[in-house]
Amino acid sequence: MEHHRPADLARLIHPRSIALVGASERAGSIGERTLTNLLTHSELAGPLYLVNPSRPELRGQRCWPSVAALPATPDVVVVAVPASGVLAVIEDCAARGVAFAVILSSGFGEAGDQGRRQEQRLQEIAARSGLRLYGPNCPGLTNVNQRLGLTFSPSFPHDLVKGPIGLATQGGGLGRNVMQAMERGIGIGLWASTGNEVDLQVADFIHYMADAPDIRVIVSLLEGIKDGPKFVAAVQRAAANGKPVIVLKVGKSEYGRRAAQSHTAALTGSAQVNSAIFRQFGVVEVDDIDELADTAWLFARAMPGAREALGIYCSSGGTAALTADAVGAAGLRLAAFTPETTALLRARLPDYAAIGNPVDTTAMVLSDQSVVETTLGRVASDANLGLTIVPIALDYGASTTRMADCIIHAQQGCAAPIVPIWMSDRLGEGYQRLVAAGFAPPRSVGKAVSAIRRWVEYGRHRRANPDVGALQRPLAQPGQRSHDGGATRSLGEAQAKQMLQQAGVRLMPNALAKSADEALAHAGRIGYPVVAKIVSADIAHKSDIGGVQVGLRDAAQLQAAWHTIMSTVTARQPGARIAGLLIEKMAAPGSVELMIGVTRDPVFGHVLTFGLGGIYVELLRHVTRRLLPIAARDAAAMVHTVRALLGGARGQPPADIAALEELLVRISDFVLRHADRIEELELNPVWVGAKGQGAIPLDALIIERTGAAA
Amino acid sequence: MEHHRPADLARLIHPRSIALVGASERAGSIGERTLTNLLTHSELAGPLYLVNPSRPELRGQRCWPSVAALPATPDVVVVAVPASGVLAVIEDCAARGVAFAVILSSGFGEAGDQGRRQEQRLQEIAARSGLRLYGPNCPGLTNVNQRLGLTFSPSFPHDLVKGPIGLATQGGGLGRNVMQAMERGIGIGLWASTGNEVDLQVADFIHYMADAPDIRVIVSLLEGIKDGPKFVAAVQRAAANGKPVIVLKVGKSEYGRRAAQSHTAALTGSAQVNSAIFRQFGVVEVDDIDELADTAWLFARAMPGAREALGIYCSSGGTAALTADAVGAAGLRLAAFTPETTALLRARLPDYAAIGNPVDTTAMVLSDQSVVETTLGRVASDANLGLTIVPIALDYGASTTRMADCIIHAQQGCAAPIVPIWMSDRLGEGYQRLVAAGFAPPRSVGKAVSAIRRWVEYGRHRRANPDVGALQRPLAQPGQRSHDGGATRSLGEAQAKQMLQQAGVRLMPNALAKSADEALAHAGRIGYPVVAKIVSADIAHKSDIGGVQVGLRDAAQLQAAWHTIMSTVTARQPGARIAGLLIEKMAAPGSVELMIGVTRDPVFGHVLTFGLGGIYVELLRHVTRRLLPIAARDAAAMVHTVRALLGGARGQPPADIAALEELLVRISDFVLRHADRIEELELNPVWVGAKGQGAIPLDALIIERTGAAA
Repeated sequence: MEHHRPADLARLIHPRSIALVGASERAGSIGERTLTNLLTHSELAGPLYLVNPSRPELRGQRCWPSVAALPATPDVVVVAVPASGVLAVIEDCAARGVAFAVILSSGFGEAGDQGRRQEQRLQEIAARSGLRLYGPNCPGLTNVNQRLGLTFSPSFPHDLVKGPIGLATQGGGLGRNVMQAMERGIGIGLWASTGNEVDLQVADFIHYMADAPDIRVIVSLLEGIKDGPKFVAAVQRAAANGKPVIVLKVGKSEYGRRAAQSHTAALTGSAQVNSAIFRQFGVVEVDDIDELADTAWLFARAMPGAREALGIYCSSGGTAALTADAVGAAGLRLAAFTPETTALLRARLPDYAAIGNPVDTTAMVLSDQSVVETTLGRVASDANLGLTIVPIALDYGASTTRMADCIIHAQQGCAAPIVPIWMSDRLGEGYQRLVAAGFAPPRSVGKAVSAIRRWVEYGRHRRANPDVGALQRPLAQPGQRSHDGGATRSLGEAQAKQMLQQAGVRLMPNALAKSADEALAHAGRIGYPVVAKIVSADIAHKSDIGGVQVGLRDAAQLQAAWHTIMSTVTARQPGARIAGLLIEKMAAPGSVELMIGVTRDPVFGHVLTFGLGGIYVELLRHVTRRLLPIAARDAAAMVHTVRALLGGARGQPPADIAALEELLVRISDFVLRHADRIEELELNPVWVGAKGQGAIPLDALIIERTGAAA
Repeated sequence: MEHHRPADLARLIHPRSIALVGASERAGSIGERTLTNLLTHSELAGPLYLVNPSRPELRGQRCWPSVAALPATPDVVVVAVPASGVLAVIEDCAARGVAFAVILSSGFGEAGDQGRRQEQRLQEIAARSGLRLYGPNCPGLTNVNQRLGLTFSPSFPHDLVKGPIGLATQGGGLGRNVMQAMERGIGIGLWASTGNEVDLQVADFIHYMADAPDIRVIVSLLEGIKDGPKFVAAVQRAAANGKPVIVLKVGKSEYGRRAAQSHTAALTGSAQVNSAIFRQFGVVEVDDIDELADTAWLFARAMPGAREALGIYCSSGGTAALTADAVGAAGLRLAAFTPETTALLRARLPDYAAIGNPVDTTAMVLSDQSVVETTLGRVASDANLGLTIVPIALDYGASTTRMADCIIHAQQGCAAPIVPIWMSDRLGEGYQRLVAAGFAPPRSVGKAVSAIRRWVEYGRHRRANPDVGALQRPLAQPGQRSHDGGATRSLGEAQAKQMLQQAGVRLMPNALAKSADEALAHAGRIGYPVVAKIVSADIAHKSDIGGVQVGLRDAAQLQAAWHTIMSTVTARQPGARIAGLLIEKMAAPGSVELMIGVTRDPVFGHVLTFGLGGIYVELLRHVTRRLLPIAARDAAAMVHTVRALLGGARGQPPADIAALEELLVRISDFVLRHADRIEELELNPVWVGAKGQGAIPLDALIIERTGAAA
């Protein structure tokens, strides 16, 4: 589908010519501020046309009455007129064959129903003409690296610190906060803030940045994702080009969702599904703005290599212990130093210093800085580690400034990054020197270590998924994104199992019995012990109304069970239409209870959930999720999360892990083959036997779509 | 025991007279710096005697040759001589009847075995004379509120910002970092840094601060806890006096423990046990220094009241959503505003603003601040909330300064605290005004919300445990703290169950059978089905070697089981001495598997662990812990953590929660009655029947101490 294809944004981001509609001299107006940013602070690659029907000229530049009247067609039209005038301008742009319009105006979807209707009309014009729209209700586009501000932000001139980080956001407020992080040496080269996203989305800019040579790290603030497949394609493109994507998603909790929805019209899907898909495609998710800045800086500084172990170098035992704790709690490893490093530390540090890892030089370095000069570089270059943390607990003034100089000098001689942590609230000369030298020191141990953890995990994910950038899936599952609240119906166990069996999923031998005699006949063929379960389209929870009996060991017990079930069920739910009893071979007891589920996420499509089943589901929520389809490697990673339960505790033999993995892949294939039909699927519990005995769903439920979508 | 009793520290903290041994003029020496702090920067309540045998006078003050030669006995002697001279000075102090000695010198336990022996001799002198020792290897004692610096720290003069927070630390480095947090308006009135703790411990100072009228909030950085009961008594005292204790414990991970141990000789017990005991006694645990500062400030600002719900007030939708997410993720609640607040917001805010909670005024307030002036105070005083968060994403200059003024003004008219979050890296005029007005704005949403979460949870804990400050336990369990690695022996299931039965713990009917015939007789009396389990002091893991058979339904099956077990066990472990088989009534199947364990923590004593048992233990570690003894209320809280598993899922009846709670209390009583004997106890699994059927340990193991300690 055309819809999911990314736009080619080169002409938007480096336009050869620009028109500003609504150019103005009224101080503080959007038209005036945008004009100032373009005329005074930008470096333009070609002509800037001013459009204002009531003025012959502005600031010595000729004004044109309309887009239609322009002497040439500009690449980009920036629209800075009130909402009521926007549609006419956009019609003009479409007629003129303009490629891009940046609509700064607010008063659209965020303002109510009337605004939402206006947005629809904008979309119609875009769809019909090929004109691509950016905004509305946005601060514009800030191309710092090329010094171009298609924005009314008065901060633009202050933002002109070039850098390798690209920022794509929806709303402007939080994005500006990230821009202010440049105060501590984080250079953001391009900021796209797409506002209400009537057409171009954050994902389009992620895709653009994935290819842009001046951007190495992509950062995104998301309030909602409008087009899941497009987002996935964009982050896969970034992965293919070796660029990390760091995402802060707001609207994760019910409260946040409410706040985000009142703010924009963007759809906010399930937070668990979003996070799972981020993990699956190597997107680095963070939870706060400062984490985002720290993490982006670290990736811009260096990409993670194969060496995951860390070094800690510090001059206070308590701080060393605090940092080591954070490293341990984050599941990271401290390196064992090479003999050369150890020998040098032993020779240069006092007897009572700690020369293992963490290195605690003790406070003696405050009086003799030469020790740091000769040892820090050696530690940071140690062949056994990939990154060195240098927590600086205090700003002592001159001695701390010398420490900063030592860090700057050591970093010059070593490829693995050094991460200084500036823990003090005093931001003295040492701090300023670090920032000037390109460090953006995290301000607490926890913040530094959580950035480092994400950096290490990203490297690990890349190594484990070398092809994560390759497109693994058809981008447009027919009907997949339709979330029309269409009618559905539930296929009960018997029907669901039949479908699964046809798809090659192994089940316990079973058969539907319409009478007690049939039940006995089936059981005789299947072999005792058996389970008997009510089959009725009207009954959702079989156990709850006495519709299940397990462990039936012989004909007498089965016969009795038939009568008990029938009388209990009909007593408790008199009107239920009953098709009979499903007679099924009973699985050996003692297996751990697992579950496999599939749901259709409104943004991304079918998502598979796997984890603990049975009564533990509710309490523990020990599950893992993947967007479909999954490959064998994904299945293995999913099963690994419950590995501890399958290892043969208490002298039991190890479980049939291969069969469980195969079942997951088979379910993935099955669902995608029936993607237009299947809305939900749940296999709970799934029984796992000893090696060779298989992995078998004991219960099954499918909810299928009955609407027109199929 | 004398040992656990807190020292009366009033004369140490407000001495009437002080002697400085090692007073010096050598620039930068410890003796010189301490002298400067005392003479130039302190306000002394009485005479300061200088001791230096080689000088008649220093800075115009007479010098005395020794402590013995002083004209009067000082309350406190500050020792600033090299380690080699310390013992002689302390002997002098003891002979003279000095109450306290503050030993600043380093070169003791932290420097090796020789230093540790010196510490032992210091302890002997203290024990024999009653002289109390502070240090060694510490920066001293900083009494900011009374302007007294028994310290060599050159920062002391800068630290003189009075405040209601007391700080008790071991090492000096991290403590000084907290002191630097005063840069953002956090006033610390007293800082004790106890160094190697040969005598006085952090807990003594927590106890002192609990009673000190000028301290309202107690903050502690702990590398290890030497005396668990003393620590518990101190935090209970603080609780009784309504003062929160906020603790950052380093050495929580293996890495951190290693670093902490190389630094001090302090014992670092199990991190899980420490954290559980902190929770139990209402101690607020934090994980990082900045969290500690944010949390301490919030408690100093206001104590949590009965209203837990929060307000969010902000001018950016994205920031509102980010903050609301953090509130949701922390398990906190947003308030529903009163009709009055809602009416005012509707009247004053623009149509497209969000007037629910979070309030999003939209950026219009940048141009019309009067809206904030009229509405923020109303929101912050709303009767339905206990605290209002005001995230400030950006520093826009003048308009942000006006926002700060509005916050300051609104706070003056309302008792519930307002917590501004200063998210920008620009610390402009608005930030400075907030700090000057007594706000210490957290610097990120996450940091603010985690401080607020701890604040709310502390209030909740106080309400649920109104008597947490009351001493619930004998402070010195005989033998409890001996951790001498003495011999232990394991009581197998049969013996352990006998002890439990005598203690009134309900078990499944069981009996030891020495022959197959005895087994059949027992089973006949008990009733089938039964379980048969090998009884042997030589066999630890019965199942693993085929020593258990379950579900024996009749005499024939039991007979067969006897022979199978005996032949399997003797084949697999030929030398094992076998006492017979334990024949036990089999519990009904289907119960969730729980476990109860008791271990002896080397610092605190017996700790009870309760949670999921069976194979889930390893994977999920879903457990909760309490220091013994526990009361009925504790047992209820512990059982509550697995409530979701006991509620009668799948149509099963609800479990016997009362019996489970009673079992926990009974085990607590049982262990304390045998505290000198029991080293460990494990009941796993514990079976829980339906209401009225009881909670019954199915397996039991006790490890008892056989050494002299009993």
